[in-house]
Amino acid sequence: MTDRPTLADLERGTPFADRHIGPRPVDLDRMLATIGAASLDELAAAAVPDSIQDRADAAEPVASTLPPAATETEVLAELRALAARNTVTVPMIGQGYAGTITPAVIRRHVLENPAWYTAYTPYQPEISQGRLEALLTFQTVVADLTGLPVAGASLLDEATAAAEAMTLLRRAGKARSPRFVVDADTLPQTVEVLRTRAEPLGIELVVADLAAGLPEGELFGLLLSYPGDSGVVRDPAALIDAAHERGALVAVAADLLALTLLTPPGELGADAVVGTTQRFGVPLGYGGPHAGYLSVREQHARQLPGRLVGMSRDADGHPALRLALQTREQHIRREKATSNICTAQVLLAVVAACYAVYHGPEGLRRIAQRAHRMAAVLAAGLRAGGVEVVHGEFFDTVQARVPGRAEEVADAAHAAGIALRRIDADTLGIACSEVTTVAHLEALWSAFGVSADAAELDAGTGDALPAGLRRESEYLTHPVFHEHRSETSLMRWLRRLADADLALDRTMIPLGSCTMKLNAAVEMEPITWPEFANLHPFAPEADAAGTLELITDLERWLAELTGYAAVSLQPNAGSQGEFAGLLAIAAYHRSRGEAHRDVCLIPASAHGTNAASAVMAGMRVVVVATAPTGDVDLDDLHAKIAEHGESLAALMITYPSTHGVFEARVREVCDAVHEAGGQVYVDGANLNALVGLARPGAFGGDVSHLNLHKTFCIPHGGGGPGVGPVAVAEHLAPFLPGRGEVGAVSAAPHGSPGVLPISWAYLRLMGLDGLRRATLTAVLAANYVAARLRDHYPVLYAGADGHVAHECILDLRGISKETGVTVDDVAKRLADYGIHAPTMSFPVAGTLMVEPTESEDLAEIDRFVDAMIGIRGEIERVAAGEWPATDNPLRGAPHTAACLADKWDHPYSREIAAYPMGGTPGVHDRKVWPPVRRIEGAYGDRNLVCSCPPVEAFSS
Amino acid sequence: MTDRPTLADLERGTPFADRHIGPRPVDLDRMLATIGAASLDELAAAAVPDSIQDRADAAEPVASTLPPAATETEVLAELRALAARNTVTVPMIGQGYAGTITPAVIRRHVLENPAWYTAYTPYQPEISQGRLEALLTFQTVVADLTGLPVAGASLLDEATAAAEAMTLLRRAGKARSPRFVVDADTLPQTVEVLRTRAEPLGIELVVADLAAGLPEGELFGLLLSYPGDSGVVRDPAALIDAAHERGALVAVAADLLALTLLTPPGELGADAVVGTTQRFGVPLGYGGPHAGYLSVREQHARQLPGRLVGMSRDADGHPALRLALQTREQHIRREKATSNICTAQVLLAVVAACYAVYHGPEGLRRIAQRAHRMAAVLAAGLRAGGVEVVHGEFFDTVQARVPGRAEEVADAAHAAGIALRRIDADTLGIACSEVTTVAHLEALWSAFGVSADAAELDAGTGDALPAGLRRESEYLTHPVFHEHRSETSLMRWLRRLADADLALDRTMIPLGSCTMKLNAAVEMEPITWPEFANLHPFAPEADAAGTLELITDLERWLAELTGYAAVSLQPNAGSQGEFAGLLAIAAYHRSRGEAHRDVCLIPASAHGTNAASAVMAGMRVVVVATAPTGDVDLDDLHAKIAEHGESLAALMITYPSTHGVFEARVREVCDAVHEAGGQVYVDGANLNALVGLARPGAFGGDVSHLNLHKTFCIPHGGGGPGVGPVAVAEHLAPFLPGRGEVGAVSAAPHGSPGVLPISWAYLRLMGLDGLRRATLTAVLAANYVAARLRDHYPVLYAGADGHVAHECILDLRGISKETGVTVDDVAKRLADYGIHAPTMSFPVAGTLMVEPTESEDLAEIDRFVDAMIGIRGEIERVAAGEWPATDNPLRGAPHTAACLADKWDHPYSREIAAYPMGGTPGVHDRKVWPPVRRIEGAYGDRNLVCSCPPVEAFSS
Repeated sequence: MTDRPTLADLERGTPFADRHIGPRPVDLDRMLATIGAASLDELAAAAVPDSIQDRADAAEPVASTLPPAATETEVLAELRALAARNTVTVPMIGQGYAGTITPAVIRRHVLENPAWYTAYTPYQPEISQGRLEALLTFQTVVADLTGLPVAGASLLDEATAAAEAMTLLRRAGKARSPRFVVDADTLPQTVEVLRTRAEPLGIELVVADLAAGLPEGELFGLLLSYPGDSGVVRDPAALIDAAHERGALVAVAADLLALTLLTPPGELGADAVVGTTQRFGVPLGYGGPHAGYLSVREQHARQLPGRLVGMSRDADGHPALRLALQTREQHIRREKATSNICTAQVLLAVVAACYAVYHGPEGLRRIAQRAHRMAAVLAAGLRAGGVEVVHGEFFDTVQARVPGRAEEVADAAHAAGIALRRIDADTLGIACSEVTTVAHLEALWSAFGVSADAAELDAGTGDALPAGLRRESEYLTHPVFHEHRSETSLMRWLRRLADADLALDRTMIPLGSCTMKLNAAVEMEPITWPEFANLHPFAPEADAAGTLELITDLERWLAELTGYAAVSLQPNAGSQGEFAGLLAIAAYHRSRGEAHRDVCLIPASAHGTNAASAVMAGMRVVVVATAPTGDVDLDDLHAKIAEHGESLAALMITYPSTHGVFEARVREVCDAVHEAGGQVYVDGANLNALVGLARPGAFGGDVSHLNLHKTFCIPHGGGGPGVGPVAVAEHLAPFLPGRGEVGAVSAAPHGSPGVLPISWAYLRLMGLDGLRRATLTAVLAANYVAARLRDHYPVLYAGADGHVAHECILDLRGISKETGVTVDDVAKRLADYGIHAPTMSFPVAGTLMVEPTESEDLAEIDRFVDAMIGIRGEIERVAAGEWPATDNPLRGAPHTAACLADKWDHPYSREIAAYPMGGTPGVHDRKVWPPVRRIEGAYGDRNLVCSCPPVEAFSS
Repeated sequence: MTDRPTLADLERGTPFADRHIGPRPVDLDRMLATIGAASLDELAAAAVPDSIQDRADAAEPVASTLPPAATETEVLAELRALAARNTVTVPMIGQGYAGTITPAVIRRHVLENPAWYTAYTPYQPEISQGRLEALLTFQTVVADLTGLPVAGASLLDEATAAAEAMTLLRRAGKARSPRFVVDADTLPQTVEVLRTRAEPLGIELVVADLAAGLPEGELFGLLLSYPGDSGVVRDPAALIDAAHERGALVAVAADLLALTLLTPPGELGADAVVGTTQRFGVPLGYGGPHAGYLSVREQHARQLPGRLVGMSRDADGHPALRLALQTREQHIRREKATSNICTAQVLLAVVAACYAVYHGPEGLRRIAQRAHRMAAVLAAGLRAGGVEVVHGEFFDTVQARVPGRAEEVADAAHAAGIALRRIDADTLGIACSEVTTVAHLEALWSAFGVSADAAELDAGTGDALPAGLRRESEYLTHPVFHEHRSETSLMRWLRRLADADLALDRTMIPLGSCTMKLNAAVEMEPITWPEFANLHPFAPEADAAGTLELITDLERWLAELTGYAAVSLQPNAGSQGEFAGLLAIAAYHRSRGEAHRDVCLIPASAHGTNAASAVMAGMRVVVVATAPTGDVDLDDLHAKIAEHGESLAALMITYPSTHGVFEARVREVCDAVHEAGGQVYVDGANLNALVGLARPGAFGGDVSHLNLHKTFCIPHGGGGPGVGPVAVAEHLAPFLPGRGEVGAVSAAPHGSPGVLPISWAYLRLMGLDGLRRATLTAVLAANYVAARLRDHYPVLYAGADGHVAHECILDLRGISKETGVTVDDVAKRLADYGIHAPTMSFPVAGTLMVEPTESEDLAEIDRFVDAMIGIRGEIERVAAGEWPATDNPLRGAPHTAACLADKWDHPYSREIAAYPMGGTPGVHDRKVWPPVRRIEGAYGDRNLVCSCPPVEAFSS
């Protein structure tokens, strides 16, 4: 009748997809025109091989249970309803997860601050000094408290940290025995993950009651718990000595808070210490994400898995931080890597570090005392009331025996709002913490049917820590742990650190294979709601009804989007998803009597983690060559399949390829592997080019891992948390981790549910149409960048039709050869332009891989392209001899404000150094100053300093 | 038995006061030693006159109902419990407050971001360009939508904006009549505030039904409503013409969202347009805070009350923003001022501006269409069901007549979660908005007992806007309203703006008389919880049970802390509290038959607002001289009292004085006024020096206003919101605003309840002991600054014992005379040091007033002191002739990074310009770059530009 919008249209409002996606329709037209496509659909038809594309008219509907896009208001309402279905109780379950208080100042200024949570892994250290400093602080906390000098920048959780310690001890020690002895009083989830990780590596795990000493026989390593799973604190010194005498090394799983009161394991002879830093202010989140830790003796520093932050110096000789000893890592060592860990839990490690800075040593000690005294008085009250308390010496956890009454007492406590650990019909575990109050003790006594007076008991009850294990040594003596005790001071410290870093809130981060897209505020808000944040992972299922429904939704939606039958959200990083997927394949073969299948084919261009994961899963890696087109070399594939025949277990392939190309013959590749009896693992790193267009499970994959922190909007957090679900076809479903056939790969049953509302919200907000549009826009953006830069830098690979997928590779090798200007120079120079560098030298050395994603608007993409063209012009001036190869704006990059204020004897001007694109005076200026100049990595590796240096180090 | 802390001690944890207060015990010792005091108590005894100090052993306990300090966890739990007692319904009450959606991106990046909310009023424009730009954007939104070219940077609410418009029309127009005619179809709260404001000024308010045209007789002004309170939209053009013909000027109260669809009042001849911007994304907050607006024709620009942002240029000739036409303001014009407004609602104006930027003109139009079409279809459904809909032409609000059934229908709607306006027994008001859905319409039809099909009605129902009033003109054509449609782009724009400003998250802001203290995260968190944020001010009281209890607590606690009998939280700025307090005094005199008492004594040093408020309250201002000590000149006081005798209404006095001194003889002053039959008004601006030490109501005050945004932690928001409760002694309690004897001073009954959880939390967290300790620390800090700087700058005033109170005045007059270096130079130079300047030239021209507050730690106070000493050294070099008076780092300040990169021909180095204290390389560097150089104010005043300029203005 009229052309006015209908009421239903108006009610729908602006679709969230229009906020998530950067370019406007008019921009899309310009971008399409630039690449010579008429529409997004035409681009899809051209770029994505017909053989794998989902069709709107397909018989099998895609993602049939993902509802149509909802508005932000609707999604917040739905999430509030889910949150309301959770019941948050006082967490006294313990078992490795403690009640803790996240100071509001840290919640607001870190967890809810995009400057922290949208940052990338600090591979560009010059523009990452803030979080590197926070991580150095984290390392110092761990090193000081554990009494071992070298601590990494966090691991995924306590259980995987213990597994990493196990393999570290094996390679660091001299013993050749395959036996690893584990204290029976270890957290059950740690034992389970150790089993999962030991088996494929041929490690013989012996879980033993160590009360009577070490079991007979050889061993390469020993894991003790301090305190034990039962809460008991035993002196580990004698066992450590005994193990050392037999040539074994010893790791101790320790409660970091307890170490403020107890002699640290490092002083008792331990070679490594592992644990979690969750109770340092990190919300429980129904299991994660939390930062695990691992510290070692000096001589094992080079054996540490994961990230290690160290001091070095910059081009002006000033102290500067960067990731140390990177040659240890899986992306360099590939199948020779000793661990597949390629991320940390940076955001959570930062929280833990801030918590230590905020409380300082006295504050932490007092929190520990609170937990301890509450437990001591609780135990005294129970004993006085005739309840048997199993152990006499403990830190914060007591076991109480109430024969036949455990369920009844636990129910009574639950009715009073307190969750206990139900150990068996007769025994309960009760863990005290920073949140325990006298009122809780009174409620517990009442639940046990005991009456007691807390103040009276307090006066009459001594500590329950072994007298010989009282900590004497100092810790956290560095000024940073003493300077920021007021909220104002902490807030400013956090702002100063954040300002040193370039995150998504200031620039695009066009990282190939890392998909740095919008982390929308509406997606982020729910994760700090108490109902999601404060759930204990072992809370009764009924208490987690909302989160469990969210998990079920998300698993189902992800399965449908990827074309698989089942998904497990347990793996808490992409690498863990890979490992879980390969374990599923191995177990499947085993279940069919084909345990001998152990060859894993991996293309030469694969991410190094693939190979490392395959080795961890007990497979032999065989490399398949890459054709000149960048595709898998089919001839070589067939040859390798023929060669390994009956031994073929799997092929791992990334799709679109790590070269950023939709390989046309991927179905053929999959078919060949299947024919030979192998399974196809499709690495989901590049899923952002597929969602809504094609499904790996539908074009030949048997298993994939996804990266929720790439494709599904969980922020990178400065280098973690990651969530790496594993998705499998029907026949592999029984082999998902922790479902019986294959053990757990993470400490918590559902991995890191604390951040899953983000991905849930994203899917709910976008709907299938929005997701498809996002994918097409991402592909368009990459092709637009390629088209605009092609005349300035060669673009390395493209599909048969000339298109790239969602990223493109700029080849600088020729330029470097001719001019001496390296990818490093270009990357650092981008910082002067105020832009974060793309991925450097992966998958091809001497190149830059650019992934603009769908969230960047055209103005920002053009800013990047214009900067790259500007840099090309600068390279020309070097090539023309106008500037020497050793002194030009590229080699000098990045330039700090301080170096501008200093005397200047370069052949280029300060203005060119700092304002290469010209400046816009005033608030519109986008100039961002790197706080340090180019960092010398090698210097720091030669002079390893991995904890907060004395203040004098910074005086210049 | 042992010296270990008790369980109760441990449970208490670190008191919040230790986080709020900056200096540690060891710092306090150093500070005390510097000023020569042994303890805080000794300092109190010495500095605070004995005659006014509260004693711990006093008969009457202070703040007896304020509970002892609670922990952050406890306070959050208590606030959650209060929040849970509120019932949030779908707000369809209307009456000037509409449902709106605050985009999550704006909530997180503005409302929850300290860079925005902790900023001060932009008196230092060089380090305030970000919020000045946001405010210019706000002004552009208002100007474009209302069709009048000059809009201020926001007013306190719609009702006070209407009152300001009334007085503006009176002074801007030529008519000498005292009559102001108000459309009877105006919001009732607006009419009430107009009455309150008109009466003391002798304005005769005529509320008239204008359906039949203007009432007979003279008038100086007219206020129309567009749409009316009833929702009806009438063409105002004929009435405007008629008023103009009689020599009157016309203001129109307009709904800003409606103006996206309706011809703007400016095009219909209005001279001024007023209203609220609440529905531009600002949470309802049970009434506020929201930004009111006022726009006028060009020729009235200099009559605008409040803040006006305008373009000017900086020393390098680049465009730069600052507050324009400041000579209009009350702090300069004092009793000649035409308004006492000295703050805006900056934070909320920024939210409204961001909302317009985010949605753009098409988006706003669509939101308006949604509200309109929902109302049109609702009305059609009601009519079809036999319900009488009163008006045929409306924007978003309809009135429905259901004789005798209004209560029943409203109850049924409420049961369905929808709140309606209960107009009388027969009539309901129903307002649609951005949040209205078809489901709401269906629930409403059902509540009315009607059944209807929305889609069918939609198709068959035309718009209900008058055909002749459809907007034809464009609006929001500036690029800023088109560039940030994706969340990523908006987020980055907000970060860029925020980075241009220096707020408390980066530096102390040592503003005398403004108390810039910590705004703790835990205090701020609750204000964005939906239960507090989404309450309509006219919701049924039962729905606001939690907020009402919080208000009652806060009023009681504040009364006790100040020694008064009653408090009203209604005034939504300090100036409004002053006005309300003076109205109470006037009404009290009137009630005693002493209406002739109209003289208000004000010391010469008083804040200009005092005088402006007195004039607004209908009083005559008589100035009392200041003695050379800075105290009130008692002889002159007695003389003035004697002179005015029976006419004496009140004395206004600030305590401690605006000179930052505890005047010893304040009781004598109060007694003298009382003896003469006057009332004593104690201005609470400096209450931060008194809380927990002395109570104005106990030492002679009859009434005070407090500044919750100074003393009680509501953040300054970049220049608002403020909350200025008025506190009165028993005999004045009946005369509090809106309680019968005196009318309302704000639109909403409780002013700005949306931010009251902040002050409630602060008091609950601190307890009386904590508050007292904070006060003492603030006094110590000021005395420490005075002691350290005394040898470098003369300190102007001190009490009898040689101490200052909580602030100190540094006298630069001698220095300026000798060297030519001005307070301006020093203030701007501080920006180069990365520190926000103190208050300039108040209360004494040529001085700086410094208030460090209790929240700054010693390191930060020392950084400020060291900077001031460094600057003194620079002044010496000017004095010594080393640098010319016209070209030195002080005169050149502030220096931008861009000017450093440029060519340099100053007699001082770049390093001195930018790093006067030396730099700390790396992340520890605290260098902050002002985005512009010194701004020429006069240039902008000569060339007034008060809305977003074309982009070309920024190209240089």
